[in-house]
Order: sequence, then structure tokens, then C-alpha cells
Amino acid sequence: MKILVINGPNLNMLGRREPPIYGSVAYDQLAALIQEWSGALAVSATVFQSNSEGQIIDAIQGAGQYDGIIINAGGYTHTSVAIRDALLSVGLPVVEVHLSNIFSREEFRKTSFISDIAVGVITGFGTESYHLGLIALYEHLKKKKHAEDKN
Amino acid sequence: MKILVINGPNLNMLGRREPPIYGSVAYDQLAALIQEWSGALAVSATVFQSNSEGQIIDAIQGAGQYDGIIINAGGYTHTSVAIRDALLSVGLPVVEVHLSNIFSREEFRKTSFISDIAVGVITGFGTESYHLGLIALYEHLKKKKHAEDKN
Amino acid sequence: MKILVINGPNLNMLGRREPPIYGSVAYDQLAALIQEWSGALAVSATVFQSNSEGQIIDAIQGAGQYDGIIINAGGYTHTSVAIRDALLSVGLPVVEVHLSNIFSREEFRKTSFISDIAVGVITGFGTESYHLGLIALYEHLKKKKHAEDKN
Amino acid sequence: MKILVINGPNLNMLGRREPPIYGSVAYDQLAALIQEWSGALAVSATVFQSNSEGQIIDAIQGAGQYDGIIINAGGYTHTSVAIRDALLSVGLPVVEVHLSNIFSREEFRKTSFISDIAVGVITGFGTESYHLGLIALYEHLKKKKHAEDKN
Amino acid sequence: MKILVINGPNLNMLGRREPPIYGSVAYDQLAALIQEWSGALAVSATVFQSNSEGQIIDAIQGAGQYDGIIINAGGYTHTSVAIRDALLSVGLPVVEVHLSNIFSREEFRKTSFISDIAVGVITGFGTESYHLGLIALYEHLKKKKHAEDKN
Amino acid sequence: MKILVINGPNLNMLGRREPPIYGSVAYDQLAALIQEWSGALAVSATVFQSNSEGQIIDAIQGAGQYDGIIINAGGYTHTSVAIRDALLSVGLPVVEVHLSNIFSREEFRKTSFISDIAVGVITGFGTESYHLGLIALYEHLKKKKHAEDKN
Amino acid sequence: MKILVINGPNLNMLGRREPPIYGSVAYDQLAALIQEWSGALAVSATVFQSNSEGQIIDAIQGAGQYDGIIINAGGYTHTSVAIRDALLSVGLPVVEVHLSNIFSREEFRKTSFISDIAVGVITGFGTESYHLGLIALYEHLKKKKHAEDKN
Amino acid sequence: MKILVINGPNLNMLGRREPPIYGSVAYDQLAALIQEWSGALAVSATVFQSNSEGQIIDAIQGAGQYDGIIINAGGYTHTSVAIRDALLSVGLPVVEVHLSNIFSREEFRKTSFISDIAVGVITGFGTESYHLGLIALYEHLKKKKHAEDKN
Amino acid sequence: MKILVINGPNLNMLGRREPPIYGSVAYDQLAALIQEWSGALAVSATVFQSNSEGQIIDAIQGAGQYDGIIINAGGYTHTSVAIRDALLSVGLPVVEVHLSNIFSREEFRKTSFISDIAVGVITGFGTESYHLGLIALYEHLKKKKHAEDKN
Amino acid sequence: MKILVINGPNLNMLGRREPPIYGSVAYDQLAALIQEWSGALAVSATVFQSNSEGQIIDAIQGAGQYDGIIINAGGYTHTSVAIRDALLSVGLPVVEVHLSNIFSREEFRKTSFISDIAVGVITGFGTESYHLGLIALYEHLKKKKHAEDKN
Amino acid sequence: MKILVINGPNLNMLGRREPPIYGSVAYDQLAALIQEWSGALAVSATVFQSNSEGQIIDAIQGAGQYDGIIINAGGYTHTSVAIRDALLSVGLPVVEVHLSNIFSREEFRKTSFISDIAVGVITGFGTESYHLGLIALYEHLKKKKHAEDKN
Amino acid sequence: MKILVINGPNLNMLGRREPPIYGSVAYDQLAALIQEWSGALAVSATVFQSNSEGQIIDAIQGAGQYDGIIINAGGYTHTSVAIRDALLSVGLPVVEVHLSNIFSREEFRKTSFISDIAVGVITGFGTESYHLGLIALYEHLKKKKHAEDKN
Repeated sequence: MKILVINGPNLNMLGRREPPIYGSVAYDQLAALIQEWSGALAVSATVFQSNSEGQIIDAIQGAGQYDGIIINAGGYTHTSVAIRDALLSVGLPVVEVHLSNIFSREEFRKTSFISDIAVGVITGFGTESYHLGLIALYEHLKKKKHAEDKN
Repeated sequence: MKILVINGPNLNMLGRREPPIYGSVAYDQLAALIQEWSGALAVSATVFQSNSEGQIIDAIQGAGQYDGIIINAGGYTHTSVAIRDALLSVGLPVVEVHLSNIFSREEFRKTSFISDIAVGVITGFGTESYHLGLIALYEHLKKKKHAEDKN
Repeated sequence: MKILVINGPNLNMLGRREPPIYGSVAYDQLAALIQEWSGALAVSATVFQSNSEGQIIDAIQGAGQYDGIIINAGGYTHTSVAIRDALLSVGLPVVEVHLSNIFSREEFRKTSFISDIAVGVITGFGTESYHLGLIALYEHLKKKKHAEDKN
Repeated sequence: MKILVINGPNLNMLGRREPPIYGSVAYDQLAALIQEWSGALAVSATVFQSNSEGQIIDAIQGAGQYDGIIINAGGYTHTSVAIRDALLSVGLPVVEVHLSNIFSREEFRKTSFISDIAVGVITGFGTESYHLGLIALYEHLKKKKHAEDKN
Repeated sequence: MKILVINGPNLNMLGRREPPIYGSVAYDQLAALIQEWSGALAVSATVFQSNSEGQIIDAIQGAGQYDGIIINAGGYTHTSVAIRDALLSVGLPVVEVHLSNIFSREEFRKTSFISDIAVGVITGFGTESYHLGLIALYEHLKKKKHAEDKN
Repeated sequence: MKILVINGPNLNMLGRREPPIYGSVAYDQLAALIQEWSGALAVSATVFQSNSEGQIIDAIQGAGQYDGIIINAGGYTHTSVAIRDALLSVGLPVVEVHLSNIFSREEFRKTSFISDIAVGVITGFGTESYHLGLIALYEHLKKKKHAEDKN
Repeated sequence: MKILVINGPNLNMLGRREPPIYGSVAYDQLAALIQEWSGALAVSATVFQSNSEGQIIDAIQGAGQYDGIIINAGGYTHTSVAIRDALLSVGLPVVEVHLSNIFSREEFRKTSFISDIAVGVITGFGTESYHLGLIALYEHLKKKKHAEDKN
Repeated sequence: MKILVINGPNLNMLGRREPPIYGSVAYDQLAALIQEWSGALAVSATVFQSNSEGQIIDAIQGAGQYDGIIINAGGYTHTSVAIRDALLSVGLPVVEVHLSNIFSREEFRKTSFISDIAVGVITGFGTESYHLGLIALYEHLKKKKHAEDKN
Repeated sequence: MKILVINGPNLNMLGRREPPIYGSVAYDQLAALIQEWSGALAVSATVFQSNSEGQIIDAIQGAGQYDGIIINAGGYTHTSVAIRDALLSVGLPVVEVHLSNIFSREEFRKTSFISDIAVGVITGFGTESYHLGLIALYEHLKKKKHAEDKN
Repeated sequence: MKILVINGPNLNMLGRREPPIYGSVAYDQLAALIQEWSGALAVSATVFQSNSEGQIIDAIQGAGQYDGIIINAGGYTHTSVAIRDALLSVGLPVVEVHLSNIFSREEFRKTSFISDIAVGVITGFGTESYHLGLIALYEHLKKKKHAEDKN
Repeated sequence: MKILVINGPNLNMLGRREPPIYGSVAYDQLAALIQEWSGALAVSATVFQSNSEGQIIDAIQGAGQYDGIIINAGGYTHTSVAIRDALLSVGLPVVEVHLSNIFSREEFRKTSFISDIAVGVITGFGTESYHLGLIALYEHLKKKKHAEDKN
Repeated sequence: MKILVINGPNLNMLGRREPPIYGSVAYDQLAALIQEWSGALAVSATVFQSNSEGQIIDAIQGAGQYDGIIINAGGYTHTSVAIRDALLSVGLPVVEVHLSNIFSREEFRKTSFISDIAVGVITGFGTESYHLGLIALYEHLKKKKHAEDKN
């Protein structure tokens, strides 16, 4: 099982960026945790980060070899139709995650162009959101495979 | 660690209720799964369900002995200020879960009176949402206890 | 043919309640009229009333033995996602009725969480709305049975 | 008792027009059914159809000899202040009917310029909506006459 | 100086139509008054009425021989882009008049598709609105002619 | 017959103020024209102007000796509940006038706190709006007196 | 003079519930204060509390023996058409009170389904709001009785 | 204890102004009542009225010698950011009062620029609103002094 | 291949009507151009124009013999649910065209009741829009026929 | 005549991307078709695609050597003020094209930051939209050149 | 070069008024600073302050002798059409300044009736906003004079 | 003191881009002017421009060595949550500048995702906006340093 974890703009600033909101774990530590959690699930995870909307779209388009995508599109979550279209274009199961609780912040963070096309959304648990996202996607893919095997 | 799992209106219909949206697992099976998942985390979970807004508020008010609440308030999620106020009145950490992806359904399901006062939200993963919610609340409480022990 | 007639909050006050809007027929008289009209259609009708949203949901969930539901959810019409979900959970044909013309009153009465999932809506004809509702549901069920018999 | 039944634009296409929404009964059959139902109530009904907003207004203005109006204004329901004004100008009791359930379709069909000035509204029961409308108007006129006789 | 006075739907019902709102002067009397008032200004007025949006557009398109238009488009005021376009297509000065005060009635009467392309608007003075409209258009045309003579 | 003509803020700048919108007639000339037009109607008119909302309210409150009010509240038209309340407090017939066509300008000029409590509104005819306003109020008062004499 | 004081959901948590917003007086103390204040006015007060919308409606419907109602509907203030309808159904004078200033909190607390049908509203003075409410209702009932005695 | 009572535009018209809404007590009587009520509380009250927004701001700015303000800003309640800013600039406790129930009138009266910065709001009890306002402010100041004395 | 080209209100004024917006080609010339362009595609085109909404609906309903419709509904584009319903009732492929760029004009021209049920939309190219519309419909019908032949 | 054809994000996925919406023609085939269609018009076309908003802006800024632009900005159509500004900065005629009918999809696709500054818009005809766009731009440029030659 | 600096309501409270928002510089100090900054630019500045909307309008109307206006209209910024009209009536270049950052405060402070008719806006730099405003207006007037001298 | 000046998309087109809006100074000249103005303040300024949202975010993230940021984010001002988040992530004082007066242009330019997190905003003064921005940031940093030195 191969999973692509996509991190959008400013996530590379993790640890240094508004710690009361995003926590004090550094981005490299998050990447390492994702590898650790994936390992525990026997899942192969690739972690990608970019500040550029175009590069994120490129990464999604190139995700043909993966079974699913975990995405924290950062600020692009609320503004990017193009990333939504890219996700739709590859047709893979998507899990949307956020470090902070986007519902207790500015009004404009309550709109996501990804949520309604994702399998599900996990928001507010800090780095743990990624851990939960990995489990969620893993379980979803297992169930999906099980259903396909049946037919 | 003691956790109260609150299920709102119509969740007792699980398995019989719109299966393409809510899945085919019966409510009793969900309750058993929650006990199983809790056991694996060495957490003691109480599962409560009611179709009555007032009884849900009573249950929340009586949650003094618990360390945290997982709530799927069903239809009341989108309409109940009173349940929000009850959650605020006990001051416990709350994790909001939903079986279906509320963002890909009717417009009115995109508003929640609980999300912005919760630690976080997990939505769209079927019964697995509860499993993720248990892990999320467990990790949150561990971190919280750790921080309290430090001070 | 068995039909469940559900009356929501304050309908028990009929006759005493704002007569220029709701008319002077008492609730007991309405219940008797419903029985009379049902009898004329050779339909067995059960009339239920409650001021409690939870009890209305309970009643809907327990409607397995009925062929269809006539509902006047009173004030809950405009605010209850939970009653909507209960109606969806049992999957029976629903006819929504109102005594008053909800379109010539306060703005908030123009929104119904039931209308779009009902077979149809009848509003504004006083107690006669129930009579029309019975005929409508009776004809709908006949046509439905006819179609099922054909296949 | 004389009743004018007004059918607005595209109702003449009944039977050929989007059958999953409007049913397979042809317009002529509907007209015959209305005569049959009226006969059973000993009511004299005139059925009028036009695709022209102006002609519908003309027909309403010329309704002086009728006791009441049943109107399915079709697409003009949602856009015509002029038809509303015509109905107000003759001051007759009006029953608004629709074949389809206008609340489960496009957003713009939820607005009616007729509903708040009608006695009541019946929507969603196919051709049966007209039958119910005839009964509703008949009962309304009987009650009205009864009240007038009393004074 | 030749002026075309256009009356929209239901104005032919004047006198019989909701007298507390529109007054008790009959339409024929209004037409006679317009002739009388025009005569006093030495203006030749043609009075036209139709319930049909299309015929009103035809009338406007054929207004080439007139110096200006007084229009009370009735219910079409609030809904007709096509009449607006017709008025723009002939490029004549337009004065919009209304019998009732459209600002103290239903919300939807506060929107006019004519007002912003008219020279001005006169509303609320009963039949006197037409008298004022005639004077207003007469003075506007005089001033316009004066300005053209100057250049 | 005594009429109070109230002019709000910046009307004293007439002639110097944005001539393409408000015309080139000076404020003194307008005041003289109002006297001339009133004289022709055998009406006694008092013309008042102030840039101060409070002084306009004072003037309205002191209008007990007048039979009616013509008001061009200028910019306060769109923002002053207090002037509306003052007009309501004296209970005199009010005619609202504007030099420019407020419907073809900025969006915020389309809202008036006076229109719905006035007898009627005249807008867009330059200084002629006042002339029409005088005739309108004069005719309204005559009709009112006539009706009162009758009773 | 008999008054029914109705307290909605979570008011039983008073003293323990968000003290910076609701104060530190316990619910029992509030109930005692209400009795004390009523005694001083020689008014007989019954204090009722429920977390259930249905039970609050029941209590209102059973208020036939009271002269007036003081209600703090808590979270139901902002969401319950059914409680509004119950208050309308008994036709008693209603005074709406709130402990906190609902206008300085979340946006959704600014809407009340009770305010426009109440005699008046008192909000923001902590437990003193009830004291003021008692005086207000007492004075209102005295004035009402005085007016009735006169006729 | 010294209290400044500020009355906004048109309150000087009390008794003569729309009595069904504002009652028949004259403004001078209200002023006398305020003195009487204040005397009973051993509070020194100054009553100020102005139709001018600027003078009201001046009065607020000069309120340094008072312990609190009771304000009925009349029509300015709904439109004046400047009065809000003046109240904020002096930092005194403010109680907002209204004679009429502003929630059962025009839509625009439901917005207040004062409510969210006031201690609380009292609306709908006629002149009694001021009495309640005096008690409310008196109790608030006592509690505040008590708390300050403690520290 | 037979195509019906429908032109709505005021298109007969082409050439004389606001030339900076609609161009200087006369309506007859446009009709001739359509014939010329159709000829080049070996398509038989019928060109219909009416100012009447009802006649346009009649024309659409009678389009049974055509393979597709090109429609420029003029002002009715933005207001007519009835024309939309007529187009839906015949079920033919529709291409919506406009002479002017409706997106760079008044706000209300941005709403079309036709666009979402059309194959596609062409707007802004003057008379060339019809040429493009013909090619578009021709290619669409060819592709459709090709697909049908295949099955 | 030189034309720049700009394709935005995800258009490189054509053929593989949601075929029921975007069709089964591959992006390379589309590019070849554009060359073929351009050749037939004796127009030199350059086709550019990028997933990056910045690169699209760069391409537009560098379009000095072209006579016009055809743009399908994909998801950026609905969100990019910066691309709009780039188009305005070069001042070339722009034709906006879309493969799918953006008016029959999600609500947010109905807003375009390009439409009102384009010559015109063509939407819904699959790859044929580009063909029509080429003809439209070609005819526009010919007409423009013709007009310039005249002066 | 002569500049009029207009300060609106509550600016005279500077230094005493909400210091965390408006700073601790007193109003007299600000006035002195403005003179100092003007002197450095060899500009003659007059500083005017009033709490009265009417007096501010008077001051603007009397600004004929000045070359430009710097205005901080305080609370009137967000509510006064009349001040906007006054500024338009004198036709001088206007620079709008604010001490606080109006975009990070209450929602209603984000609307200004002055911004779109000003040369530009400077907000958020405390008293320095006036310094920048002086430089900005000075540079604007120099450039304007330079352009006029050229022609 | 080191300042980073960030210019967003299309600012490199300055001088060639819509000169009536943005002026005729070329981008290189602006860059030189910024150096000149910085030099006069003894500030070291780095000027950066990019059309790419991602590169602008990169530049902001790399601004650790600067004391403050001046940003004109061009079209991204109105659409980029990601740039806002980047500015928040580095926590430096930000001054937002614009060449044109964004309040007198299209509606969508009135929304900025930067304004409420900036120290202040300067808009409308052409290239002078940058000069004022430099002074503003310089004074802000001086004051900040002064305050820090004090503690």
C-alpha cells in the first residue's frame, strides 16, 4: 500500500510558525513521525511539501503509482479550485487533514474546496491529525480492496 | 481514563438507515466496536444514545466523572445551541465525529454548533470515525495530562 | 392500509390556540375527524401527538408497521434536521400537512426541513388539510402498490 | 358552484414533457379527469390553458362569474408579479396546485408569487393535486357560504 | 409634442382592483383625465394598455413618432428585463409612474428594472401621479428642445 | 394651506455642486422658484435648509402649524432613522423629492428611510421635482380636506 | 398575582457553568432569590427548569392559572419556533430575560424567536435580570388590570 | 452615586408621538419620574435630551463626573458609530433602554451599535424601562464598588 | 439537419438598438447571414423572432421537426422559467447565443435560466455568435448522430 | 495573424481526467487539432499549458508578439485576479473558452474573473470550443484590422 | 499650499480614549505635531475638530480657500453619506486617514463612504498616519500643479 | 534597519500596464526610487518581485534577516490565504501598499487577506505609496525598538 502525503504552503515552517495554533513540532519531525506511523501500518508513505500551487498540482497529477492521498493543502484549502480539479483528475481516495481546528478560526477557513470530494476530513489534533489520517486512509483502502476482491 | 461516547438522534437506526450513506453496520455492532477499540487503548468507554435533545443535555451535564466526550450529535449538530451550551458548561475536551462526510451532503449539514468548541472533528469514515475519535481523544488527554504533570 | 398521523408541538392546543390562524375545531375533534375520514377510505389511521422532538422521532422510528406517514410537525417543521433524518431512516412515503398557510406568515415559516423529502405538501386548508392529506397518501399508496404488483 | 382551473405554460405538453417529473398522463386526459372530479362534487369547472402570461391575466380578470380559481401557473409561478396582481384584482379564493414537488427541485422553484395570497397550496401529487385542489376549494367555498349565510 | 402613455397589466381593472391601494377612479376615467391634463399642456397623448409583456414591447418599439414615454408597467416593473431593453432600444425620454407608493408595500416591489434608465420616477399619488408625470415629461422635453436649439 | 419645504445637507451648495448631477440652478434661485410655484397654487411655503441632522429634526418637530411637508433630506435620506422618527412623530403628510434620479447612482442611494412613510416620492427631475412635489402635496391636501369635510 | 418563571436548558448548571459569563450564583440560590423578590412584590412565583424543549412547551401550555410568564429559554431562545408557538398559544404576557448580554457574544445569539412576541426583553444583568423581569411583569400586569378595570 | 440619563432624538416628543407605540406619558413627566425613581434609590440623576448626534456625543464626553450612563439613543441607536465610540471613550458602565419593543418593529430597529458594549439592555416596558434601567445600573455599580473594595 | 433559430424580444430592433452594444447590422441582414451560414453547412435553418414570451414558448413546443435549437432569448434569458421549461419539455439540444458580452454589463444579465440546460453558451461576438452557434450545434448533432449510429 | 492559446491547470490531463465531463480526446490530440484548425484559417497558433498561476501570468506578459489570446484558465478562471490583471496589462483581445458547460456544474464555477474583460466566452462544446474560439478570435481580429485600416 | 485637516467625533478625546487602540498622544499634541509636520513641508495647515456631522459638513463646504483636505471622519466614516456628498460638492483632493487599523476591528468599520472618492487612504499608523497623509497630499498637489502648469 | 519590499504579480509590467490606473513610471524606476527613499532614511531595502504565489511565500519565509516587510501583493492581495499565512508565520511587522485606490475599483478589490494582519495600509498614491510605506515602517520600527529598549 503506497500513500502520498501532500503538505501545502507554510507547512515547512512548522514549529517556528504561530506555535499556539500549529504546535511546536518541527516540520522534519512531522515527516519522521509520518514515516514511523506508516511503518507501523506497513504502509509506504512519501511526504511532499511545496509552497507553490502549481507544484502541488504537478505532484497530484503524478500520483498514479499511489493508492491514496493525504492532503493538508494549508491556505490553498480555502481558495484553490485547481487543486480540487487535480484531485478529481487522478480519482484516488483523498483524506483531508489539518493541524489546527479550522472551525474555530477566521470565517474564511470554514470553506474548503477539498472536503466534499474527500473520503473524509480530520481537523484539530495537531500532528496527530496525520496519524489519524494514515489510519483512516489505510482502513478505507483495506475495505475498498476487500470489496473489489469480493466482486 | 474514562470517556463518554454520545450518539444523537437516529443513530440507533444504524444499519437500517440509508445504508449507502451510513453503512450497514448495526448500532449494537458499533457499540461493541467502540468497547473493543476502547479496550485496546485501555480506556473505559460508556456509550449513550438518545433521540431527545433534552436527554443528551442531561447526559452531558452528568459527565463529571469522565475525562472527555466523543459526540456524534446527528441532526442536532446543525441546530442545537443548547447542546453546545451543555458541552461548554462541563468544560471537558470534546471530539466531534460523523459517520458520513457532512461536507458532501445538503448545505445545512455544513454548519455545526459543536465544531468550533471541540478539540477537533473527524467526519466521513463510517464507523471508523469513532475509532479515530477514540485515538484522538486518548492522545489529547495523554498530552494534556503530561502538560499538567509538568506544571 | 395503515397510516400514521403525526402531530407536533402545540397541535394539542387546537381550538384554544390563536383561532384566527388555526381555527376553532378542538384537537379531539380533529382526531375524530381523521378517524372518520380514514374510515371512509377504509384506511386504518393512528393519530399521535407530542410536544417533544425526541418522542416524535421515536414514533417515526417505530412506524415500521405503517404504509405511510402524514406529518404536521408544527414548529419543528422549520428547525428539525433530526425529524427529517428520522423520516429518511424509515423510508416510508410522507405527506406534509399544515393547518395555516405557512407562506403568508413569518419569513422563517417558509423553510421546511420536510418538504423536499415528502411526496407532497398540503398547506392552508385548516383541518381539511388532513382530509386532503389522507386522500393524497391513500392515492399515492394505491398507485405505488399497483406499480409494484405490475413488476 | 363554478370554478375556473387555470393552467400555465407548458402544461399542454403534459405526458410528453419530462415524464419522470410530470408523469405520463396527457393534458387532455387531465382535463377530462378534472371534469370527472368536478362532476362528482357537483361543481361546474372550466379548464383554461395558455403559454402566454398576458392571456392568463386576461382569463383571471374575466373570472367574475366564477366562485373560485385553481391555478397551476407553471413557470410563471416563480416569476410573475402581474399574475399575482391579477388574482388580487378579482378577489376570488385561489388554490395553488403543482404536479411535481416544487420543493425538491431547483432552488428558484421554491419561490412562489402566488402562495401567500392563496387560500392554500397543494404540491407534489401529480394529477391528483388537481383532484385535491378541487375538493379543497369546494370545501372552502362551502364553509365561506355557510359563514355568509349565518351573518 | 406627442407623448405615449403605457399602462401595464391589471391597470384596466382600475376602480375595481383593491381600491384601498389603487383608488376608486375607473380606468376609463383615468384615460379621460390624461387627455384632459394633456390638453391643458397642449400635448397630444396616446394612452395604451395591455396585459401582455410582448404587446407592451411592441408598443414601445413602435413609439418612433412620439417625443417621450410615460410608463406604469404594473407588475412587469419588477420583473421585465425585456421591457427595459425595449425602452433602451427606442432611446426616448421615459417617466416612470405608479399609482400606489411601491416603497410601502411588498419587498419585491422595491426593485424596478425601469427606474435607473428613466429620467425620473413619480410614485404614490394615485391618478395624480400621471398628471405629475405629464408635467414632468413636458418640462423635460421643453428643456431638452431648448438645449438642442441652443447648439 | 401652509407647507414646510425641508432641504437637507449640501443642498445649499446647489449650482456649485456636481452640476452634471444636480444642475446649475443656484440654491437661492431654487428657493425663489419654490415661492413662485407656491404662489401660483395660493399656498404659503416656508423653505428651510440645514446641514445638521439635529436641526432638521428640530424643524420637523416644530412643524405643527403646517399642513404638510416636502422633504429632500439629501444624504440623510439613506442613513437617518431619526429623521424618519421625527416625521412619524408629527404625523403630517410628507412628499419626498430628489433633484437627481437616485436609482441611477450608487447602490446605497437606493435605500430611503423616508419613502415608505411618505405619501409618495418624486425623483430625477432637477428643480422641477420640487414643483411637482408642491402640486402633489397640494392635491393630496385638497383631497384629504374634501374627505374630512364629507365626514 | 401568579407568575411562572421558566428556565431553559443548562440553567440548572448555574454557578458551575462558565462563571465569567453566567456568574457564580448557583441555580438554587437564583430560585431562592426569585422567591424572595416575588415575596417583596406580593407576587406568587413558580420556578420551573428543564433541559427538554418538549417539557418547556408542556409547562407553557399548562400555564393557564398564571397571569404572566418570565422566560429565559437558554439555547432554545435562538432555535425554537415550537416554544414561540406555545407562548402564542396561551396568550399570556411574556417577559424575556437573559443572564448574559446576548448581544456581545456569538452572532447566532442575536436572533431570538421570543423577543418580538414578548412584552419586553431584559438582558445582561446576571441574576438581577430576573429581579428586573419580575418588576417589569408586575408593573405590566398592574397597568393591564387597571386598564381592564376601567373598561 | 451619580447617573447621567441620555435621551436621543424625538424623545422630547413623548406623549405626542405615536402613542400606541410610545405611550401617552409626556416627556416632562418621564423626566420627573426618573428623578422620583432615582430619589428612591438615593441616586443623583441628571436627565439630558438632544436631537443632535453631536450634542449627545458632547454630553457623553463630559460625563466624567458620573458613575454610569443610561441611554435611549432613539433613532441613533441603529445608525451611530460615533455615539458608540463616545461611550467607549469614557469607559463608564452603560445601560441601554427603549420604551418600545424594538424587536417587534421594523427590521432596521433590530440592529444596535450600543447593545454589545453595554452592560445590558432593557426594551419594551414603556417608561418603566427607565425605572428598571436605574435599578439595573444601581445594582451593577454597587456590585462593582463591592468588588473594588474587596481588592 | 434542421435547426430552429429563436430570437427573443427586441432582437427585431437590431441595427437601430444601442449600436455600441449590439452592432449596426440590421435584423434582416442577420436573418440573411444565418441562412448563408446554414447553407454553407448544408443545414436547413428556420429563423423565428417574437417579443412575446408565450409565442416563444409556442415556437419551442412546436419544434418537434427540428434537430436542435439556437436561442437568443434576449431579456427573457434572465427572467423566464417558462422558456426554460419549454426547452426541457421538447428535449432537443440547445445552444444559447448572445450578441453582446452579457458578463460585462448589468449584474442581472449574469443570470441565465437557459445556460445550465444548454449544450453550451456563446456570448459576445456580435452577429458572429450566431455563426459560431450554428457550427457548434452542427458539430454537436454530427457527433450525437455518430454515437447513435454506433449503438 | 498570430494567436496564443493558453491552457491552465489540469488541462494536460485531458483524456484521462473525468471523461464524462471533459471528453476522451487526449491533450496532445487537442494541441494537434488546434494547429490543424489554425492552419485552415491561415493563423499561426502557439499552444501553452501550465499548472502554475505564475507561469501563466509570465506567458501572458510575454505575449507582445501575438495579435490575440485564447484562454482556458481551468480552475484559475474562478479564483485568479492576478491572471485577469495580466490579461489587462497586455491589452490584447481575449477569447475565453471552456470544454465543459461551467453553468451546469458547481456554483463556484459560475464566477469567472476573465469573462467581463474578454471579447466573448464559449463554453460547453468540448474540444470544439477551441475551434469556435479560433474562428471567433480570427473574425474579431479581421474586423478590428478592417476598422483600423479605415481610420 | 493650504491644507484643511478635519477630525471627526471623539478625536478630541485622543490620549484618554481607549489608548491600546488609539495611542497615548493627546489631541493637542496631535494638533501641534500636524503644525510641525506642515511647517517642515512649508504647507499651511488648519486643524478642525467637531463631534457634529453638520459642522463637519459646514467646514467642508467652507473649504474653498484650501488646496486639499485630510480627513479622519471617525465614526462618521462608516455612516455618513452627507459628508461624502459635502466632499464631492467642493471637488478638492481628499486624503483619508485613520489612527487605528480599521481592517482589524469590528466588521462595520470596514465600510467607508469616503475611501472611493478620496485620492487615497492611510490607516493604522497612529498619529504618524497624519504625517504620512500630509506628505501624500503635498506630493499629490505638487504633481497636480506640475501637470496643470504643463498644459 | 533592513526592509524587504515585496511586489506581487504584474507589478513588473509597471509603466506599460493600464497607465491611467497605475501611472507611467516603469518598474525599474520604481525600484530605483525605493532605493533612493530608503537611502534617505538610512534604511537598507531589498526589492523583490514575482508573478508566482509560491515564490512570494518562499521570499516571505526567507525574510528572517529583515526587520519588516512592505508588500504590494497585487492580485494575490484579494485571493491568497497562503501569503497571509506566510506573513503570519514570520511574525514581522508588515505594511500593505497599493499604487491605485483599490476602493474605487471593482468590488472584489475591496477585500484584502493582508490588511487585518498588517500594521497599516497605504493605498492610492501611485509610486508615492511606497515612499509613504517606507516612512511608515521606519517610524514603526523606531517606536518598536524604543519600546523594547525601555523594557
